[in-house]
Amino acid sequence: MYHFKMTNQIEILIKKYQDIVNQGLEEIPIPGFPKSLYEPLQYSLKTKGKRIRPILTLLIGEGFGVPIQKLLPAALALEILHTYTLVHDDIMDNDEMRRGQLTVHKKWDVNTAILSGDAINTLAFRILMDTDSPNLQKIGQVFTDGMMEICEGQALDMEFENRMNVTVDEYLTMITKKTAVLLAMSCKIGGLIAEVDDKMLEALETFAIKTGQAFQIQDDLLEILSDQESMGKSLGSDFAAGKKTYPMLLTLADMEEKEKKEFLTFLKNNSNIIEIRERFLKSGSIEKAKQTVNELITESKNSISVCPPKVRETLLGLLQFLQKRKS
Amino acid sequence: MYHFKMTNQIEILIKKYQDIVNQGLEEIPIPGFPKSLYEPLQYSLKTKGKRIRPILTLLIGEGFGVPIQKLLPAALALEILHTYTLVHDDIMDNDEMRRGQLTVHKKWDVNTAILSGDAINTLAFRILMDTDSPNLQKIGQVFTDGMMEICEGQALDMEFENRMNVTVDEYLTMITKKTAVLLAMSCKIGGLIAEVDDKMLEALETFAIKTGQAFQIQDDLLEILSDQESMGKSLGSDFAAGKKTYPMLLTLADMEEKEKKEFLTFLKNNSNIIEIRERFLKSGSIEKAKQTVNELITESKNSISVCPPKVRETLLGLLQFLQKRKS
Repeated sequence: MYHFKMTNQIEILIKKYQDIVNQGLEEIPIPGFPKSLYEPLQYSLKTKGKRIRPILTLLIGEGFGVPIQKLLPAALALEILHTYTLVHDDIMDNDEMRRGQLTVHKKWDVNTAILSGDAINTLAFRILMDTDSPNLQKIGQVFTDGMMEICEGQALDMEFENRMNVTVDEYLTMITKKTAVLLAMSCKIGGLIAEVDDKMLEALETFAIKTGQAFQIQDDLLEILSDQESMGKSLGSDFAAGKKTYPMLLTLADMEEKEKKEFLTFLKNNSNIIEIRERFLKSGSIEKAKQTVNELITESKNSISVCPPKVRETLLGLLQFLQKRKS
Repeated sequence: MYHFKMTNQIEILIKKYQDIVNQGLEEIPIPGFPKSLYEPLQYSLKTKGKRIRPILTLLIGEGFGVPIQKLLPAALALEILHTYTLVHDDIMDNDEMRRGQLTVHKKWDVNTAILSGDAINTLAFRILMDTDSPNLQKIGQVFTDGMMEICEGQALDMEFENRMNVTVDEYLTMITKKTAVLLAMSCKIGGLIAEVDDKMLEALETFAIKTGQAFQIQDDLLEILSDQESMGKSLGSDFAAGKKTYPMLLTLADMEEKEKKEFLTFLKNNSNIIEIRERFLKSGSIEKAKQTVNELITESKNSISVCPPKVRETLLGLLQFLQKRKS
């Protein structure tokens, strides 16, 4: 009964923040000219994402008593930064679809996607600079340190495509930089605007990093455990193309050289997801990965025990909401 | 005699600032890993440019009595920002050489150039955020407003490639955004660190914009008036490819529709720079462009009459030094 009520409350809160973010994004004054720059910029900003990153900033900042208006520029900057990374990553990964619409480089061309991505990145920093806070310098440093780690994550992701000997730890570093760091930036910047102390900032950072890692591994598990239809893509072919996932690297980690080679050849020549799944299950790596997810979620929850009740409860509610969507 | 001495003094000062900038760039701690990100980043930062942009920041800031160390992060950020725009522009323009070495996308590949360009851009912001100034928010806003205009300039440049009806005013807007704005950012940020008033900031901005415009038109004049050998490239072919320059657009502006068509066909089918030059000279556009350069330089000089003698004199010295290099 309590859980149901809690979930209901958090869903109302999330919807409120989503509306604030969407309205905030719509109200950013974007010039109409040059059209080749601002049309793809608007196209990218208007897509409806889940807005998890700005929600974290708003939820934490408001939880510490900061008015929404004071948090909004930074929250929008974090969502816009996320949008820019998607535009440029989609070029590098040669992806065709994003959030249900054609990617910028497919709808226009690569040059347009490079330049409008640059403009979206600039817009993120421009709006961050409207933050009215005595902590502005620190906020700018956290923002740009995080941006650099995100670049590192994408570089590692591309490097790993051409390497078969990626370790589980290397993979964890990559997903942390590529996805968890942006969640940590969102949490820390909410805390910095609320002028919390270093201990609290550290707790918020740990919460975000562990959550991000858990959800990425959870995504990897879904890829192997879901029905092909529900994922809407051919799963076996991803493995054949050399795609790394957490359970796969766990499986490889326990193998001798000869066994490794045989397993990789099996993945390369087999696009039957049922058979691949059987091998993963047999190796025990699915169970191990599930255990890691649970451990990370526990660490994530424990880290925010130092937060005031209001912040802690809404963060736990958000976590529960996100877990429900993942399962 | 006075001029000679002045030039000598300014050359010593410029050399001093260049050394400070080059050393500052070398001392930035750059991780070795991931290699695919930081190797091209280092490669781009290490090329020896003229460092005009950071020199403007240092010269103005020091002229107003600010210690170099307080100016250095912003000065380096402006040079690094310039470097990032070159890496991404070179992809879009498909250029092979830059500052005497292969461009990043030619030495590595397009993905590496996109991502390392993004990291160089991030590094620029990151270092700017180390600026210790009560004006940091304003500095961040000037920096990012300028970056957006630079994106607009590049977008216009690409749009104009496929348009024959570009006006002289549109061209001036494009070169202002693409090159003059970064000079203006460098001057204004030097002024902001020195905490000068708005009137002084405006004067510094006008100085930079007029100078940038004058030098770009001067470059256009050199393209048509120089010997092919001294420019090291085939000049006629640029015109045949539809490249716009200030004198060319001035020539077109005075023509009737029929005459325009004939002239464009002439440029398209003729790669003899001597014949093209004759047509430009006959139209009077070379003279008009030279006059515009002189007018802009005069406006540039007049604008800084409000500056204290030390700042004014070093800026005039720098202007003279740069003009000498252009002629």
